[in-house]
Amino acid sequence: MSDLLTQLANLLGDKGFLQGDALRDHPACAFVIPRGLIRPASTEELSQAMKLCHSAGQSVVPQGGRTGLVSGQCAQTDEIIISLERMNNIQSIDTRSRTMRVEAGVPLQQVQECAEERDLMFPLDLGARGTATIGGNLSTNAGGNRVVRYGMARDMVLGLEAVLADGTVISSMKSVIKNNTGYDLKQLFIGSEGTLGIITRAVLRLRPKFRSQNTALVAVSSFEQVTELLGRADSALGGSMSSFEVMWNSFYSCITQHSDKHRLPLPVDYPYYVIIEAMGGDIAADDERFHAAMEDLFESGLVADAVLAKSTSEREAIWAIRDDMEAIYALYPLFAFDVSVPLPDMEAYVADIETQINAQWPDNRLIIFGHLGDGNIHVVVAVGSDAPEVKQAVENIVYGALRERHGVISAEHGIGQEKKRHLAISRSDAEIALMRTLKLAMDPTGILNPGKVIDIACA
Amino acid sequence: MSDLLTQLANLLGDKGFLQGDALRDHPACAFVIPRGLIRPASTEELSQAMKLCHSAGQSVVPQGGRTGLVSGQCAQTDEIIISLERMNNIQSIDTRSRTMRVEAGVPLQQVQECAEERDLMFPLDLGARGTATIGGNLSTNAGGNRVVRYGMARDMVLGLEAVLADGTVISSMKSVIKNNTGYDLKQLFIGSEGTLGIITRAVLRLRPKFRSQNTALVAVSSFEQVTELLGRADSALGGSMSSFEVMWNSFYSCITQHSDKHRLPLPVDYPYYVIIEAMGGDIAADDERFHAAMEDLFESGLVADAVLAKSTSEREAIWAIRDDMEAIYALYPLFAFDVSVPLPDMEAYVADIETQINAQWPDNRLIIFGHLGDGNIHVVVAVGSDAPEVKQAVENIVYGALRERHGVISAEHGIGQEKKRHLAISRSDAEIALMRTLKLAMDPTGILNPGKVIDIACA
Repeated sequence: MSDLLTQLANLLGDKGFLQGDALRDHPACAFVIPRGLIRPASTEELSQAMKLCHSAGQSVVPQGGRTGLVSGQCAQTDEIIISLERMNNIQSIDTRSRTMRVEAGVPLQQVQECAEERDLMFPLDLGARGTATIGGNLSTNAGGNRVVRYGMARDMVLGLEAVLADGTVISSMKSVIKNNTGYDLKQLFIGSEGTLGIITRAVLRLRPKFRSQNTALVAVSSFEQVTELLGRADSALGGSMSSFEVMWNSFYSCITQHSDKHRLPLPVDYPYYVIIEAMGGDIAADDERFHAAMEDLFESGLVADAVLAKSTSEREAIWAIRDDMEAIYALYPLFAFDVSVPLPDMEAYVADIETQINAQWPDNRLIIFGHLGDGNIHVVVAVGSDAPEVKQAVENIVYGALRERHGVISAEHGIGQEKKRHLAISRSDAEIALMRTLKLAMDPTGILNPGKVIDIACA
Repeated sequence: MSDLLTQLANLLGDKGFLQGDALRDHPACAFVIPRGLIRPASTEELSQAMKLCHSAGQSVVPQGGRTGLVSGQCAQTDEIIISLERMNNIQSIDTRSRTMRVEAGVPLQQVQECAEERDLMFPLDLGARGTATIGGNLSTNAGGNRVVRYGMARDMVLGLEAVLADGTVISSMKSVIKNNTGYDLKQLFIGSEGTLGIITRAVLRLRPKFRSQNTALVAVSSFEQVTELLGRADSALGGSMSSFEVMWNSFYSCITQHSDKHRLPLPVDYPYYVIIEAMGGDIAADDERFHAAMEDLFESGLVADAVLAKSTSEREAIWAIRDDMEAIYALYPLFAFDVSVPLPDMEAYVADIETQINAQWPDNRLIIFGHLGDGNIHVVVAVGSDAPEVKQAVENIVYGALRERHGVISAEHGIGQEKKRHLAISRSDAEIALMRTLKLAMDPTGILNPGKVIDIACA
């Protein structure tokens, strides 16, 4: 047993540091058995542990709920995993300043529920809410279904605490909305996927809980009309629009063909389907405004067909179509992408990749849906194989077509290991060089989540 | 004439580089005549000029509209000023993706007007809008009257371009809302007051132009009721509340006593006055909702008295009270502060500084108002002198009382030179050390806006 492992065991005890056989049953080690697993009970414990790792030149991989989609949380056998699972307390909630202090290991859903019990809302929402932790959400700058109104995870944080590679604790746990006192250091840790520091605590900004919720599924005949609909709906709903989700016909028909579990709110022969949802504070007035806006849009000719949810179960039935990934997974083997494209270029982008994929694999399935209100679509490509050379060819098409259109290869999932090879499509050499400068300044020996986001020539 | 000045003159020409007598009439040199003034016509010109300055170890001071309040734009005689005044073009506006590409030297008001002509809105708004430039707004992360709804300047930027100390151009001019492709480098330049790079261009996010605007001035009897009002109004107005501005009685009575130019919408004997404003997309429905919300608040007993603006001129009369700085300046000599305090601690904070100021200067004026929806208040203290030792004593009270309450010494104005001495009240030693690490990594010879925000031991 090495000196470092002994030191960590002495520092953290049996609950705080797992090694050897104790690792086998831990979900963090399901795929790879690392050198050890640090489970700190406090920021101070993590700080001490990082000092030891730093001295020993030991690489570490921070983990939240392990629901990331780009292998940012994956460790090697010679690395030590750091799981924040024991730092899972909501430390306080203040209803007057509408803030919540949380440890990084709290699952997102618990944050949401704690806010709701106080008649408040934490707006971040995504499918993995039960498992994903707030620390993971922040370190990856998670997105989700309500970005069009509330922004990304980055926009919901007032204060942050992180531990640097050398164990230094950077604690900026302020609960104020406005803070122009020097560099906004929390931005370094949000979205950098654990490569610049390990997020340990945060002060989250909460919002008033909505009282009204109105949902419509509308069919649209052209992409140009979809983009016009976005602008007009956002304007007419005056700040209350919380979702603008688009399903291409390929998605809608795939879902409804796969099983008969969905009641079909609209026929399958339209090119685009949009879920428009608004949330507000006055049930009667909001209902009226939503109906008036929908009526206007219908009369303007932008909407070919529409249904408005008249009950919670009707709303859930609409969302169940959007959220039914089972029908998509049934196309396995497949490749899934998460890209942003400027709206004016979106239609041409989709046509471009469709043409290229059809040319190479005539018998393909190309399925598109996503958060169009944010310019973010998910692209699913199934060509009958997931062999590495096929993957590379598909990636070259889907990512390559982004370059000239100034799109980005990862809208919300991050880079991790999966997309590192393609980073230069979305970022210039100068940008990547500056990322390296930052990485080297903050983690000169490269022990923090090595090989993720960017490669550096050290340690 | 030094080699550097000759090189800059050759590179930039008469319009691009001023020196000697040519400096005397330029407003940038009103207080100090610097070594020279660089006025680049393009990012590339600035990049070349910075390469020369970097090689020569020449310090530079970037300037926007010079409306900053913390001397972040002030230069010394041995420094060169960089003014972005010739990079003042709106390069494009896209109504579908609702984005605008601008050069840094465009005045804020021009951005606002250009958006409005297209039925869109750039939500940042502040008093200096006619002079302040978008580059200055971004480099200082400006706030203003609508932060409660739209956030700070930081939240309105999709893409950014900046020139580093060594002339490297970091161009991240993406126009997509979601971009999780590695470190979010633009955050380094926003709010760092020109000490990490010089912002040259930006892609701004626009919003739908509001159609409805409802404004109320309400009187409230206790601070506890003010904070409850904030939560309830925000909730009832369902995302449409765009301002929640509070005037303490000291402010309201000062303004109305100073001149008879204001019609008095409410008597002067209430402790707090709040301007609540909402903006939306449906005139009839929004009016109805606003009136219903106000009626509810009145019936709940939270509101002691209220007037609702029934016309544009009534709205303007209400805002004229809030914006009348003339009455405040009449108290000269005075000290003005811009602090954030967590809402639950705000009342005690104000009582604390009032007690301390009364004890030391019985014949004082203490006037408080601000963006309470953001926890940000402006504090004006007049004690009959602005001598340096008096200034220091007042600062020690106003800033000192923030420390234990986790307030911040600058909510929106920044640090510059003015507040550098007090930075440690709001930031820990570890935070300040990390700021130095970043500064040294990105500007190792310390030529970018030296002496602002933090001091470093170099150059």
